[in-house]
Amino acid sequence: MSDSINENVIGEFELIKWIESQVQSSERMSLGIGDDCAIETGQPDQDLLTSTDLLVEDVHFKRQWCSFYDLGRKSAAVNLSDIAAMGGKPGSFYLALARPRDISDEQIKQLISGFIAELDGYGAVLAGGDTCSSKAGLIISVTAQGWIERDQAICRNGASVGDAIYVSGTLGDSALALRHLLAGEPCDARLAQRFHLPTPRVELGRALIDCHFATAMLDVSDGLLSDLGHILRASAVGAELTLERIPLSEPFRNAVDRDAGLIDLALCGGEDYELVFTSPLKDLERCDGPMALVTQIGIITEQPGMRIKTAAGEAFNCSSMGFDHFA
Amino acid sequence: MSDSINENVIGEFELIKWIESQVQSSERMSLGIGDDCAIETGQPDQDLLTSTDLLVEDVHFKRQWCSFYDLGRKSAAVNLSDIAAMGGKPGSFYLALARPRDISDEQIKQLISGFIAELDGYGAVLAGGDTCSSKAGLIISVTAQGWIERDQAICRNGASVGDAIYVSGTLGDSALALRHLLAGEPCDARLAQRFHLPTPRVELGRALIDCHFATAMLDVSDGLLSDLGHILRASAVGAELTLERIPLSEPFRNAVDRDAGLIDLALCGGEDYELVFTSPLKDLERCDGPMALVTQIGIITEQPGMRIKTAAGEAFNCSSMGFDHFA
Repeated sequence: MSDSINENVIGEFELIKWIESQVQSSERMSLGIGDDCAIETGQPDQDLLTSTDLLVEDVHFKRQWCSFYDLGRKSAAVNLSDIAAMGGKPGSFYLALARPRDISDEQIKQLISGFIAELDGYGAVLAGGDTCSSKAGLIISVTAQGWIERDQAICRNGASVGDAIYVSGTLGDSALALRHLLAGEPCDARLAQRFHLPTPRVELGRALIDCHFATAMLDVSDGLLSDLGHILRASAVGAELTLERIPLSEPFRNAVDRDAGLIDLALCGGEDYELVFTSPLKDLERCDGPMALVTQIGIITEQPGMRIKTAAGEAFNCSSMGFDHFA
Repeated sequence: MSDSINENVIGEFELIKWIESQVQSSERMSLGIGDDCAIETGQPDQDLLTSTDLLVEDVHFKRQWCSFYDLGRKSAAVNLSDIAAMGGKPGSFYLALARPRDISDEQIKQLISGFIAELDGYGAVLAGGDTCSSKAGLIISVTAQGWIERDQAICRNGASVGDAIYVSGTLGDSALALRHLLAGEPCDARLAQRFHLPTPRVELGRALIDCHFATAMLDVSDGLLSDLGHILRASAVGAELTLERIPLSEPFRNAVDRDAGLIDLALCGGEDYELVFTSPLKDLERCDGPMALVTQIGIITEQPGMRIKTAAGEAFNCSSMGFDHFA
């Protein structure tokens, strides 16, 4: 029981050695993988950001839906997104894996390679982890650390009445892809990509910090209405959204043209990993960053709760609006 | 799939609210549970320590062996031990749980209460986490952060020829208790306590830092020979141990009196969570800390590998010495 080695596969220490050979050294880390703890030099004028996430087979992913390499990339991406959602710089990441016997050494290495490759793209490093066996499915546990200039992190409680509400990218693509995957239906490659390999909006988060633009921010992981709802409750305000302003991709728009009810997925679908944020400012062009990504979708109101209106001024009721996440 | 709420039980947000009510506020944390990330003020003259661990049902624990409260305490304790093994001060801890449907709200709350109570005893705080459902067993993922004076962490690679080898507490108790548990046999309460509620040696670790005593250190999680083996390899040295010097508890000694082969459990058993460390110094009394816990068990040699001798000078061969962990 105390021995976490899976007998028929690569030893834990051999795996650690292999991981060490894959990870680029980082000035930041005075000690990386291999001791009781990783050691990182503290940043004097910075705050430390930390987030942790569990990804469980058959709850968050199915093994047959994508390659292990892409699963590793996504595991990194969704945690990079949490750092981005505070406006932070990604730093050290920790990966713990509980591994069933039917996953090969090569598959585990592919997963870790994908994880490291995704981190590389954002200046983050794999600094430690844990492996053990699993009698059930594959479990992926990720802890993300990042740094941000002291007292500059963008939290959920800073929205004020009159602030505009912005969202990056397009919404609903990932949820629509998931619906196709669950139904075993073919899926537009652009939609599938958004589910399998979401883009963490790290660059946008940093740009919003640099230009002091955002008053409150979250990443859209549980669906726009749910996550915006967190901002509203924490800030003690309400919101009014304009339905036609919700940014949609071309394949998503095509799907809605065929089945109008699918618009709910853009509002409540989850796993978009876009940033939703508020600001009293209207001049996005003052920011030096990927602002072309950003759409204003509504405004913060004194009246609590959330109202969605069409451009014609009619109230729109999202059929999924009443679920537990959203009040 | 994107919704990590277990429908028939307490909602994730309700659980987060309950956890917030249980956690004492900490000056250190500018933002604790509830946002994308926790925010902690960086420590200017300190290094950040981070360790992560997965505990998987039926791999690391069985539900019926102890209360959920004690399981929570142990989950915290084994991670506190990783911080202790560097000489660090425990700081912010993160707890992620994948929960099968047959675990009740009350059981989850008991687990979290035990986790928080154990942290409280060492000045550490629960700062964030994640919950989701599990189709298989209970998964407990813990990330521990701590702080240590810059460049003072005690790593595994600092042992030198001639250093004495020390270990805290007693060894083998936890492995003997596990053997009884696996066999369904009654177990001395003192042994069982050592398996269910190991004591992280945080105070000793700090004392060793304060008096600049230790040159290399690890916690004994995989068994003395395995973990000391890590120090030897990382430091490119060997070791000679004296069998009779291995510290044994009274119930363990009684068991060895009945079955001499059980001594192997003190050498290779695992889950002791004692500290093994090396030092060129012999005057433990110069340190202001729990030094009565510490026993000298051997010496670092130039000759590589590990040799165990009896007090009479005979070579002792541990029957488990050849396993993967140990070379």
